[in-house]
Formats: sequence, C-alpha cells, structure tokens
Amino acid sequence: MDKYDSISPLDYRYYSGEIFDKLQPYLSENAAIRYQLMVEVALVMALAEKRICSSKIAGEIEAAAKKVTAAEVYEEEKRIKHNIRALVNCIRRKVSAEAKPYVHFTATSNDITSTSESMRIRDAVVKVLLPELAELERILIEIAEREKNTLQIGRTHGQHAEPITFGFTIASYVSRLGGRILKIKDAADELRGKFSGAVGAYNASSLFIKDAEKFEEFVLEKIRMKPGSHSTQLVEAEYITDLMHAIVSAMGVMANISDDMRHLQRSEIAEVYEEFGAEQVGSSTMPHKRNPINFENVKSMWKEFAPRMITVYADQISEHQRDLTNSASSRFNTEIVAAAVISASRLKKVMSRLKVDKASLKNNFDKSSSVIAAEPAYILLASLGHPDAHETARKLTLEAGKTGKGFEDLLLKDRKLKPYLKRLTKQQLDILKNPEKYTGLASEKTGNVCREWRGKLGIK
Amino acid sequence: MDKYDSISPLDYRYYSGEIFDKLQPYLSENAAIRYQLMVEVALVMALAEKRICSSKIAGEIEAAAKKVTAAEVYEEEKRIKHNIRALVNCIRRKVSAEAKPYVHFTATSNDITSTSESMRIRDAVVKVLLPELAELERILIEIAEREKNTLQIGRTHGQHAEPITFGFTIASYVSRLGGRILKIKDAADELRGKFSGAVGAYNASSLFIKDAEKFEEFVLEKIRMKPGSHSTQLVEAEYITDLMHAIVSAMGVMANISDDMRHLQRSEIAEVYEEFGAEQVGSSTMPHKRNPINFENVKSMWKEFAPRMITVYADQISEHQRDLTNSASSRFNTEIVAAAVISASRLKKVMSRLKVDKASLKNNFDKSSSVIAAEPAYILLASLGHPDAHETARKLTLEAGKTGKGFEDLLLKDRKLKPYLKRLTKQQLDILKNPEKYTGLASEKTGNVCREWRGKLGIK
Amino acid sequence: MDKYDSISPLDYRYYSGEIFDKLQPYLSENAAIRYQLMVEVALVMALAEKRICSSKIAGEIEAAAKKVTAAEVYEEEKRIKHNIRALVNCIRRKVSAEAKPYVHFTATSNDITSTSESMRIRDAVVKVLLPELAELERILIEIAEREKNTLQIGRTHGQHAEPITFGFTIASYVSRLGGRILKIKDAADELRGKFSGAVGAYNASSLFIKDAEKFEEFVLEKIRMKPGSHSTQLVEAEYITDLMHAIVSAMGVMANISDDMRHLQRSEIAEVYEEFGAEQVGSSTMPHKRNPINFENVKSMWKEFAPRMITVYADQISEHQRDLTNSASSRFNTEIVAAAVISASRLKKVMSRLKVDKASLKNNFDKSSSVIAAEPAYILLASLGHPDAHETARKLTLEAGKTGKGFEDLLLKDRKLKPYLKRLTKQQLDILKNPEKYTGLASEKTGNVCREWRGKLGIK
Amino acid sequence: MDKYDSISPLDYRYYSGEIFDKLQPYLSENAAIRYQLMVEVALVMALAEKRICSSKIAGEIEAAAKKVTAAEVYEEEKRIKHNIRALVNCIRRKVSAEAKPYVHFTATSNDITSTSESMRIRDAVVKVLLPELAELERILIEIAEREKNTLQIGRTHGQHAEPITFGFTIASYVSRLGGRILKIKDAADELRGKFSGAVGAYNASSLFIKDAEKFEEFVLEKIRMKPGSHSTQLVEAEYITDLMHAIVSAMGVMANISDDMRHLQRSEIAEVYEEFGAEQVGSSTMPHKRNPINFENVKSMWKEFAPRMITVYADQISEHQRDLTNSASSRFNTEIVAAAVISASRLKKVMSRLKVDKASLKNNFDKSSSVIAAEPAYILLASLGHPDAHETARKLTLEAGKTGKGFEDLLLKDRKLKPYLKRLTKQQLDILKNPEKYTGLASEKTGNVCREWRGKLGIK
Repeated sequence: MDKYDSISPLDYRYYSGEIFDKLQPYLSENAAIRYQLMVEVALVMALAEKRICSSKIAGEIEAAAKKVTAAEVYEEEKRIKHNIRALVNCIRRKVSAEAKPYVHFTATSNDITSTSESMRIRDAVVKVLLPELAELERILIEIAEREKNTLQIGRTHGQHAEPITFGFTIASYVSRLGGRILKIKDAADELRGKFSGAVGAYNASSLFIKDAEKFEEFVLEKIRMKPGSHSTQLVEAEYITDLMHAIVSAMGVMANISDDMRHLQRSEIAEVYEEFGAEQVGSSTMPHKRNPINFENVKSMWKEFAPRMITVYADQISEHQRDLTNSASSRFNTEIVAAAVISASRLKKVMSRLKVDKASLKNNFDKSSSVIAAEPAYILLASLGHPDAHETARKLTLEAGKTGKGFEDLLLKDRKLKPYLKRLTKQQLDILKNPEKYTGLASEKTGNVCREWRGKLGIK
Repeated sequence: MDKYDSISPLDYRYYSGEIFDKLQPYLSENAAIRYQLMVEVALVMALAEKRICSSKIAGEIEAAAKKVTAAEVYEEEKRIKHNIRALVNCIRRKVSAEAKPYVHFTATSNDITSTSESMRIRDAVVKVLLPELAELERILIEIAEREKNTLQIGRTHGQHAEPITFGFTIASYVSRLGGRILKIKDAADELRGKFSGAVGAYNASSLFIKDAEKFEEFVLEKIRMKPGSHSTQLVEAEYITDLMHAIVSAMGVMANISDDMRHLQRSEIAEVYEEFGAEQVGSSTMPHKRNPINFENVKSMWKEFAPRMITVYADQISEHQRDLTNSASSRFNTEIVAAAVISASRLKKVMSRLKVDKASLKNNFDKSSSVIAAEPAYILLASLGHPDAHETARKLTLEAGKTGKGFEDLLLKDRKLKPYLKRLTKQQLDILKNPEKYTGLASEKTGNVCREWRGKLGIK
Repeated sequence: MDKYDSISPLDYRYYSGEIFDKLQPYLSENAAIRYQLMVEVALVMALAEKRICSSKIAGEIEAAAKKVTAAEVYEEEKRIKHNIRALVNCIRRKVSAEAKPYVHFTATSNDITSTSESMRIRDAVVKVLLPELAELERILIEIAEREKNTLQIGRTHGQHAEPITFGFTIASYVSRLGGRILKIKDAADELRGKFSGAVGAYNASSLFIKDAEKFEEFVLEKIRMKPGSHSTQLVEAEYITDLMHAIVSAMGVMANISDDMRHLQRSEIAEVYEEFGAEQVGSSTMPHKRNPINFENVKSMWKEFAPRMITVYADQISEHQRDLTNSASSRFNTEIVAAAVISASRLKKVMSRLKVDKASLKNNFDKSSSVIAAEPAYILLASLGHPDAHETARKLTLEAGKTGKGFEDLLLKDRKLKPYLKRLTKQQLDILKNPEKYTGLASEKTGNVCREWRGKLGIK
Repeated sequence: MDKYDSISPLDYRYYSGEIFDKLQPYLSENAAIRYQLMVEVALVMALAEKRICSSKIAGEIEAAAKKVTAAEVYEEEKRIKHNIRALVNCIRRKVSAEAKPYVHFTATSNDITSTSESMRIRDAVVKVLLPELAELERILIEIAEREKNTLQIGRTHGQHAEPITFGFTIASYVSRLGGRILKIKDAADELRGKFSGAVGAYNASSLFIKDAEKFEEFVLEKIRMKPGSHSTQLVEAEYITDLMHAIVSAMGVMANISDDMRHLQRSEIAEVYEEFGAEQVGSSTMPHKRNPINFENVKSMWKEFAPRMITVYADQISEHQRDLTNSASSRFNTEIVAAAVISASRLKKVMSRLKVDKASLKNNFDKSSSVIAAEPAYILLASLGHPDAHETARKLTLEAGKTGKGFEDLLLKDRKLKPYLKRLTKQQLDILKNPEKYTGLASEKTGNVCREWRGKLGIK
C-alpha cells in the first residue's frame, strides 16, 4: 500500500520522519503482532521452567516466533477468520510435531491480546510519550524561569485584569502539565496482563498446573507485567480507562497552552510569535501572514481525540465474561497515544522557538495601566475603613474612561479620599502610583513552581 | 510504508480487498489531492471560457495537473510548510511561464480544499455508501417479506411480551434504515463548494471579474457543485455537520440491528444464526463456539464513531472568518464515511446469510404462551365492563406461575369470569385459546412497510 | 420544594421570570402529565366517535382527566411503581364503573408517553424556541444591514487578513442561523406519535377494531400528530434524534457568534461592546472590568449540551421491541430544548444592545493597512505575467515589517515591478493605494444574504 | 416553585425521600451558598488571627453569614448582575460600618467559589457517595461469597463458554467497583481550594500580608482544604476532572453490572430475578411481566452522564488567567455526583433483593454440557502430543450438534483418540466426563477477591 492510499490522517499525514521512527515499534500493527509473539514466547518459557515442556521445545518456539510476520498472520486469518488462532498456526507451522502442542498451551486468545496490548501501550507511553512530555515540561520551565520578571497584563474574560509576569503565565502550565505527567506515569505502571483463560477462572491451566494463579504471575513476570485482582476473558477495563483519561486530560492542558499562545499571537496583541523558516509560506494568497498553525493543530488534535474518551467509557461495559463489542473500538486506543505523542512533539518544537515581544507586552499593559490601580485602590480604601470602597473605585474608572484622565490622578486628587490615602504605607502608595509594581508574588511563585516540578520530575 | 506499519485500524485492518477498491478513489489521501487538482482545473477552464486566459493555457494546466502526485506535493510541502501552495507549485513547475500566473488565479487555499472535500465526500457517499446501504435495505426487505408470517415472541425489557412475526421485527429496520438512506442522500446533495476568497468577500476575484458571485457559480458548476448562501474562508460548517449526523445516525440503526441479532443468537435464545465457512474458527480454545463477531464488530464501530460527532459539532465553531483549529480534526470526517461503508458492507454480508431457526422461535414462544393470553384477556374483560380487569389478569398470571397451569385454562375455568367470557366474539375467544394467533397486524404491517420502502427507494 | 433546594442549574438558576413562563407549559413535569392526559382524552374521544364507547363516557373521562395533578400521579406511582398505570388509576378513580374500562382502552403505556412527549416537544419548539430564534435572526439581519458598509479587517488564524465589513461578518450568522431555523422547523414537524400497542403490532386494538392502523391515524389526528412508517413499543428514535441534532447544531452557531463577539470585545481589539446597566458590577474586585459574561454563558451552555447528543445517539438503540435503558436518559431531551431557549433568549438580548466601535474598527484596520495590499498586489502582478508574484509580495511584506515603510510605497517604487504596474486599470491601482477599498463584494453580499433570509423566513 | 414545575428529571423525579435528604445539604443551590458563606467566614477568622481585623469583627461577620439566604442573594444578584458581589452585599448589610471592609477582604469572587465548590463536592463524595458505594460493595461481596460454589455457565459473545460459578461472576464486580471506590476517594481528597486573587498572583493579599502564599494555606486549613501547586483565577481544572472521571468510570462499572443482571433476567435465561412488591405493576397492559426496570435505569443514567465527561474535558481549557466559558457548564458537575448517588442507591437496593434461580442455572448449563468438554478435550489431547487437537475437537462438536449425541460420548468412543485418552490422569478424565467440575479456580478466586477487598476497604 502506497502511504497516500491510507484513509487515516494519522497514517498519511502525521506519521512520518521522526514520529514514524518513534511510534512504529509500539503502535503499528507490525508491533502489535510482535508483542503478541512475545507473550506466546513468555508462556512457553514458563512452561519449560515448570518442566511442562522441555527447554528445547521452548527454544524452538522462540525461534519460530521470531520469523512470523504480520502479513503472514493476516493471510492465515483471511482463511480461518480468527486472528490469534492464525498467529498460533503461523508459529506451529514452523516447529516440530513434538513442539506444536505447546504453542499457546492452555491459553485463550485474550490471554495473549489483553496482555500484549497492555505491554505495548505501556512501552509506548513510557518510552515515547513520557519523554516527549518531559521535554516539553523542561522547555516550559526554562521559559517560565527566563521570563519570571517580564511584566504582562493578566487577563480574565479576555479583558485586562491585574498585572502578572509572562513567566507566571507559563508556570501555570508547568504545574498542570507536571501533574499530568505523574498521572500518566502512574496509570501506565498500573496496566495489567492476564493468563486466566477464556472466562477468567483458569479452567484450562488448572488441568495441568496446581496453582494456576501463581503460574499466571510467573508468566507475566517474564514480560514485566502483573495480573489484576480479577479478570474474566478480559483484563479489567478500568486500567486502560484510567490511562486514556490521563492522556486525554494531558492533551487538554496542551490545548489550553495552544489556545493561550495563539490568542497572544493575534495581530492586535502580538505578545508572542514563532520564528518562521525562511522558506515557509504563511498563506497561499496572503504572503504577509504569520499564522499560528502549530498551536491550531494541537488544539485540533484535542478536538478530535477528547470525544474518544466516550468510546473508552463504553468499552468498560462488556456483557457477562465478555462480549466482543469492543473488537473494533478498543483497537483505536493506540491512536489516542499516537495523537498525544504527535501533539507533544509539535508543541515542544514550537514552544522551543517561541519569542516574547517585550515591547508589545509593555504596550498592552500601558493601555490599561490607568485603570489597573482600581483594584488595589478599592482594597486599600476598604482596609482603611472606607464604607463604600468598591463602588467609589468603580465610579472613578468610569470617569477615567470618559475623561481620558488617569485613574491614579483622579484617585490621588480626590478630596474625599485624602483622609484615607495619607494613612497608606509607602510601599502601598508606591503601588498605586506605579501599577506595574502591582504583580503580587508573580515572580516568586514562578520560581517556586519551577523548583517544585524540577524536583518532582527530576528535570535538571 | 508497509501496510502493517500503519497505526490506524482503518488502514491496517478494515481497508483491504473490495473495501480498498471502493474507498481508495474517494477517501485516500491520493484521492484528496486528485480532487484538489480537479478544482484547480475547473477554475482555469472557467477562466478560459470567460476569456481571462487562453484555452491553450487552460489545456496546458489541465495536462500538468494530471501528472501531479501526492508524494510530490508532500515533498514540496515539507519544504514550504503549506499544503495548497505546495500543490500549486507542483502544477506551476510543469507549465510554461505564460501559464504560471493562471494556476490558482485569485483563489485562496480554502477555495480549493473546501470545495474538493465537499466533492469527494459527496462522491464517496453517492457512489459507495448509498449503494451499500441500498443493498442492505434490499436484503432486509427480502427477509421481512419472506418471514412476515413466521411467529416470534415480541420482547420488551428482554422479557417475553406479545406475539409478532420475525418479518415484523425486520420491518422495523426496513423503515428506520430507509429513512436514514433518504436523510443521507439529501444531506450529500446539499454539500457546497465556494470560490469566494480568503475571507469570503470575493476580494481577489473582484479585481478582475465584474460579477464574482456569478463566477463562483460558474466555476462550481463545472464540477457539479453549488455555493452556499454565504461563506467566509470556509463553506458553512452545517452542510457537512448534517451529513455526518445522517451517517452516524444510520450507523446507530445498523448497531441496533446488530444488537438485536446477536442477542437472538444467544445460546438460550438461538432464533437466528449465521452460516459459518467450513474453515472458520469460532474460538481459539473453544472449538464449539459460533460467535456473532460480525454483529459485534458493527456495534463496536458505532461505539468508536458515534462520539466523533462531538468533534464535528466542535468544528462548527471557527473564530471570525476562520481559525484553523479544524486543521487536523476535520480531516477525520472521511473516516466516518469509511466506517459507515465498512459497517454496511459487513452487515449486508452477514444478513444475507442469516438463517432463521423456526423450531427455536416456536419453542421460545411456547415457553410463554400460557401467559401471553394475559393481555388480550385483560383487555377483553375490561371491554366487557369488568371493573378490575388488569388486576384480575395479573393475579391469574401469578397463579399460573405458581401452579404450572396454563393461564388460558385458569381463565376459562374461572367462575367469576364466566359472565364476561360468554359475551366474547368467536374470533376473540379463538385468540384467547390460541395465543399464537394474537399477532395483531404484524404480517399486514410488514407487507405495507416493505411496499412503502421499495417504492420510496426504487428497490425492485 | 424550595427553588434553591434544586440540584439542576437549569431549575435553580436559568429558569425564572420570563423563561419560566415560556417553558413551564411545555417542559415541566406538570406539563408532561398534562400532555399525557391529552392523549388519553384523544383516545376516548376517538373510541366514542367509532361508537366503541358512548360519548357520555368520553365526556366523563375528559372531565376527570382535567382534575388529575402531577402530585397525585406521583403519589400513586410511589405505591404501584409504574408511572402510566398510576396516571390511569388516577383517572379511573374519578369516573363511574361504566366508564372505567374505556380509560387507556387497548393502549400500552408507551402509546401515551411516546405520543405525548413528541407533542410537547413539538409545541415547545414551535411555540417557544422557533420564535426566540426568529427574533434573534431578525436582530442579526438588522445589524448586518445597518453595518454593511462599516469597514472591518477580516481575520483568519486570529491574524489580520483582508478587508470586509462588520455587516458581512454578521451576514455569515444570518445565513447559518437561518439555515438552522429551517432545519429545526422541519424536524419538529416530523415528530410522530403512535397507537400500535406494546410491541407495535396493534395486538390489542385489533381485537376490537377492524383497521387498527387507520384507528391509530384517527386518534393521532385529534392532537395534530401522525404515526410513522413503523413503530415497535416506541416511535422510531430517528425523529427525535434529527430534532435534537438540529437544535444542538443551532446552539453551535450561537456559540460561534458568542466566541466571535467576546473576542471582538478583548481589551486590545474592542470593536464591539455591550451597554451595561448602571447598577451592574463587572467584577467583585476589579471595578473597571466590562466582561462578556453573556457571550461566555452562551458558549458554556453549548459546552454542556453538545455532548448530550451522544446520549441521544445511544438512545437510538433499544433491544428487540424495546428495552428500557432510555428510561432516564430520554427524559433529559427536554433539557436540550430548554437550554436552546435560554441561550437564544440571552443572545437575543445582548445582540440587541451590541454597540459597534467604529473608531476601534478603523484603528485596528490601519495597523495592517500597509500590508493588506499584499494580496491584491500579488494577484495583479501574477495576472500581468509576473513569474514569481507570490514570492515577490511575500518578500516585500517582510521588508515592510523590518523597515516600517508602507508596503504600498515599497511596491509602487520597486523598479522591477514598474513594467507590470503601469498596465493596471485605474480601479486596480486605486485599490493598491487605498486598501480600505479592497472589500470585494462584502457590502453587496451582505445585502443579498439579508434579503434572501428575510424572504425565506418571512421576516419583515 | 412546585416540584413538578421543574424541568430537570433530577429535580422532579429522582430527588425525593431519602435521596433528597442525603443530597440537599451538599448539592442544592442552598448548599452552594451556605458553603460560600463558610469560606467568607474562614477568611475573616484568619484575618482576625493574623490581627488584620479584630475578633469582634470576625464574630460579627460570622453571625451575619448565618442569616444570609439563597433567595436573598439571588434577589440582590438580579439587581447588580454579579453573584458573589451579591453575596458580599448581603453580608455587609448585616454588619456594622466598622466590619464592612473586612467582608471578602482582598478576595476575588473565585477565591470563594472555587474553594466552596471543591469543599461541597468533596463533602458530598465523602459523606454520601462513598458510603453508598461501600454499601453496594458489601452487598456484592456477600452475594459472591454466598454463591461462590453455585455453578453457572460462563458466557462470551453471549454464547455458552466454560463453567464458572455465580459468585465468580459477582467477584468481577467486587474487584472493579472496589478499585473505583479507591479512585474516587483519592480524587476527592485531592480537591483543592485557592486564595490567590483575581489572576492567581496574590496581588491584593500581598498589599497587606507579607507571605500571602502562607496566608492562603492558613485560610484553607480552617476548612480542611489545601491549595494546589499553582492557581490563576481558578484552581487547576485537573483536580475536578480526575474526580469526575473516577465517578463516571464507577458509573460504568454499575452499568455493566446492570447489563449483566438484566440479560440474566431474560425470559429464556432467567438465572436471576428481583422480588417484586405485592402492589407493584410490571406493565400497564401486560400484567405478567417482571421487568428489570431498576437495572435499566442504572444503565440509562450512565448513558446520560458518561458523555458529560466531554464537558468536563472542555472546561479544562480556559483562556489566559481565565475566561468564563465554564460559567454554566461547570455548574453541572454536581449533577454527575447526584446521578452517581442515585444509581448507587438504586443498585444497592435491587442487588440486596436479588434472587438466584439455581434450577435455571443448572438447566442452562445442561444445554451446553455436552459440548463444554470440547475445551479440556482439545487441550488435553494437545498436551499428549495430538498433532491436530483443536481441529479434531471442533469437528467432534459439529458432529455432536448434527447427531444429537453427547460430545463426551463421541470423544471417549473415538478409536483414533484412544491412545491419547488412556494416558490421562484420573482427575483429568473425571473432568471430561463431568463438565460441571470444569470450573477451574472459580470458587477459590472468588474467596480471594472478596477477602482482598474486604481488607482494602475495611468492610467487615
């Protein structure tokens, strides 16, 4: 198949170069089958150690498994309409008559697929997604630390509110993404395998093995997995559900960063920008455009993948010891991991070349500086016993708006307020006169947050 | 790329053989680029007819467009980071200096992509999805007609309720699927193109063309498309939203058929079954199993794709004349079409070999026949003035349950009820004695429904 | 129950004053029961006309139904655990022994509830939602017409793109909302009732009535409803699914308007604003804030209600002639209607007092005017045979950015471009010199769109 | 407002009696305002301890707060259009001029609302939801232990598979629900408050307090809350997102129990049933029906509430230091908690009166007993070196199906298999002859699982 014959945008568009190299070993169908083979091999190795078969047989099966290809398995499946039986047949064909019985011995299909899916998703998360997110986190920390004193007007409702610093803005994401990284790590570590047979009661393995529960642990240990508290034909659905939640909610944090950055890139705001390559075209008809396409893309991926949690929730429900209405849908779980990697990788790149325009930051701040003093004014007046401080400040801002005079001037010249103002501390008065100093703990907090997350995540 | 290097289950698993042949011409990325080229050609053809360029130039561009490949466009995009400008560059390289300016003349990228996406989705729907659904509908009609007199116990809450026929059960889906086919057809016909420039105001085309709105219609007519009432950079989102809704809701009907059929295949019910191929393996460890994997798959596809409507709804929202937060997400719309085709095709096959087990149907009916008479009994008693008919019937069923006696017997022998029973018509009494005749209009209605939908959809 | 003892924000917060008066008659539980009673009355009226009971009995039942209250029905339901049987008992208690049997005669619970739910939702849509949306549409048309020549910079990616007018911006919503209004109207008209009994086969009614299908039509006509092509215990789910889709997608259009308007209210953009009441507080600590809380609320309602379409899709699926896993979920459909009314009503009010700040509009436009000429320049150069027009324009914008010179100046003074520029028409040159004239058909199109939708919706 | 004037099914239908008593103190709007007042009081108490105001003032404010009612706050909000400022005004009106300034001193609205929402949701979860779930868990454990040896046929694909016990079936839910209980507990404990001002930088509080971060901790400690690592105007969204995920996924487990139980109640299966009250009506027209309406309701609640996670995910995204597009949507979070309580409470009741029909269990098992031996037969043959054991077993089951003979008989009499069969252990042969013994570790595992979860959850 030509790559561009693909239907899924993941395959024909977002999965190439570095991304391909990173994801192929875990998330491709070739990888799926390779992991299934690893579980079949773990089983026969355990059988040999328990002296149910000889180690020669185990070696023979291991060697055979290495030669099985996805194409071969699919060819066999086309004939017999059963994917794991097809896999088993492909191995069996490559071993001696003596070894044949020990391929897939006492296993049910889902012992293999539930376990191998948990394994490869865990590996993809631990070896690809978490490092990408950690790298993004590191970049965010560096921006936050670098810009912890860079004045920015804080915004609520898209309106100028109170002063902060650009580093403080980013610190919010340092903390939120840091939290998600820990959540993903915990959930990946919790993924489980199983070797309890067709309905979870160890019916088949108990025919041969005295303590089939122990044997399950023994098989799974070989591939660094653990069983859950109980299984049916399936591993309990909640392990993967928790992981998908952790990933989707991390994509939400990345989408939020992206929304913020693209709004800060609006023509009228222009507080940040992305350095473009010399050859890069902004728009096919508008050569002057510098569009936040990377941030838009990260948001767009979130729009595509967040709703898929509903599928994950629906797949929690399986009738009795199992129906197979998750046969197609659960195959798409790997796409969620892929999308998170693609988004993290893209966001990492664009954040690493993000430029902060200090002139714009100052310019935007100045537009509102005359009214920014309204909050401290109201609070200070109130603290000094003014009976109606909030309303007084509100009316002064209206007057500042109408007359074009500075709020500070109106405030400091207001005769009725004199008795209060003269009781202010020097520092308090300083803030009323210089609203750019009204940044509270923005800088200190940024430092604290970065320090905390460097520590928690071991980022040097 | 090896097919099994794909990440998406759509690509590595569900897209092969006949399905590949059907979908590739519309839903692959190769198809996407072919359709974009078709729009570029339509534009230059229109320019030539309006004498803005020569027809020689138009011919030259048309010939060049035929030679452009997806791989080439992606290669150029990698260099300049803009997909449509890459496409344009690929065409321009293949034409004379004189022709170059007329490639993409006055167009914005989205004039090409919005239009070409509408076109190929419309074509995929009209040429692939609708024929698959019509074929499924034909099969359903044939089953309904064939089995319109086959007695079945109707079920509500999974409990035996009142008698119907198996044809009547299927007639429900004839009607519901028929309705969805019409809905999809209407929505596909409504898809629109645009040729109104970067913000929808015909800024560029108005520089050269007196009536740019008319010119838009003229270009679109060449590819059998129409413009909407208004556009920005984008065609209004609601056209595709309505189509996706129609498709997803049709998948809902297919999921409902599948749920019903797989439950009717339960070991204890066994009213229908699917003929298995001689080589087909039911289960890797349980050789006796006959599993409803196809019905489960159709349900599973619905679980995966129904939630994606939320993405479609989210893509309705685009800031101002357009943000690009639908850049990735809207690319997945074609997957919804593909999934519907895959499901319809699978369901069509399995329904065409569905077998009805009349012995099981009768057997299941008989289990409840003794209490089925409860409803007509209650209603007939009520009609004859019995003051507490419902409660009386309820108590008789409890008694029938406890004693193992037939409800009919208990009813007909109840002395207090005698005065009422003797006033029944012969036909009414006949139904009380033979509950299998209490099928109401099941058979007639089935005939009516099938006739109606044969007519509406032109199915012979 | 104290109103503030409610749990649902719909009940304790958004449902008061005018909204309460509008919604209570259709969407409250009192209304639900009133409509159920209307169906029971329609049935007995039909029975009387068909001479199955006397018209005296019908009158007696009608009079009794008028006296039944929701509280009474709920009290009875608590005793017998069945809601429609409770309703029936409440009526029966109020009529003579002779009339009792004809209450609910041959009906199944769902004949009453499916029909009454369709009726009240249809009425809520036709009598409340559609008028609210029509009023909003009228306000949008008036804004569009009034501002059709008000220059605005068009935006894509949040970046300045090409000039349009504010009226043109609004015309987009005139068209999109207009389309949704028609869609909702059509879907509401399509809602269906049923009178086909417990499994849809007219089992019970056929015991007494020769043509039970005709009788169904006859009953439903009395309450201006029609049956569908087929029913089981339920009316086909797709009618309500289509209506909910139409409503949710209309909420999407309202959310998009709201997003646009709140971004245009950003401190740095300030192209529109909402007049605040004299007493209104913008923020509890920041007295100077003017927050777009109404637009935010409309967007927020969309966030709450769009995902609920997944519930509606899930409710399409019901096993066999019906399972009852829609028992709770389908009750929430009325909330979607309520939310749409609440949003339309709020948006209507805020749009009617929306102010356009022409100074800000001009000011924002001017920031980019020097580069706006880039697009027409590139296109005009291309049309005159310049071999590399797009790249040339792109480089000039970069130069304009670096040097602070106007793009027009750089363009008109570029020696290499002279041969091309002198071949421009006067009008074309005029646009290059005055980019504010480069609005294409923005004004005309606005007029056309408003005219079209005034016509289609009968808005004077 | 009359209760039945409500729009939300939560309010008019599911919220009465015991449920009302449990939820009202936390999830009603009255409760919301009571919790807001608690935060305002905690603030002034902290101010007094830090000697910013006198303890007399603090006491005065505390007394005033106790008198404020929801109705009063809503009345004031109607006037000034700001909910927290309205609350503050209501308190201020009730205190001396001297105390007025210290009401809400240096707080922003969201310091109050973010904190109070976290508090009341935590309390509702800890004091109502978790006890309900623990009670349900206890009931499940008791069933599992009681029925750990009750033979049941295990089912996959709705088809008979291998033998288990009914206790083992329930043990699956003991484990899965147990896991969810821990998840909910952890997430509730993680909910955070904030006291960091309008943009999170402690701008206002820093005017007066040296270490405003410490002061935040100090205020929150008074109400047993903690701050997060960072906040903006909002507490980080991920805390509530994780809790909602935990709750929704617990509802998924409850939905799965419900699906299983209602299918086991199907007329043909009838392995479990629910004891009905003497007065309870099964169906309005079919007096003999015993419908699983409670299980259906629990599933239906899941259908309504699982999609709402998309809203929760969407509310993770807030522009800059906050937009208010979560103003309406986040209010609905409490409904998710309410729905979980309603479902747990209902499921608890129905499971506590669930009856197991051992005759049906045995009867269903016997239907397949002749083929159940197929799996152990295939595996045992394979273990003894039969080269084609799976295919051999498969063919024997086909023969058993066609001839009506028992699989065991065919197997034991097959001459070609003799050499293998004579090498079986006594225990293995015993299982082939008595398939009801082929339950593996079903009973032991059930015991283990119950013991484990009794321990982890402290259930005696």
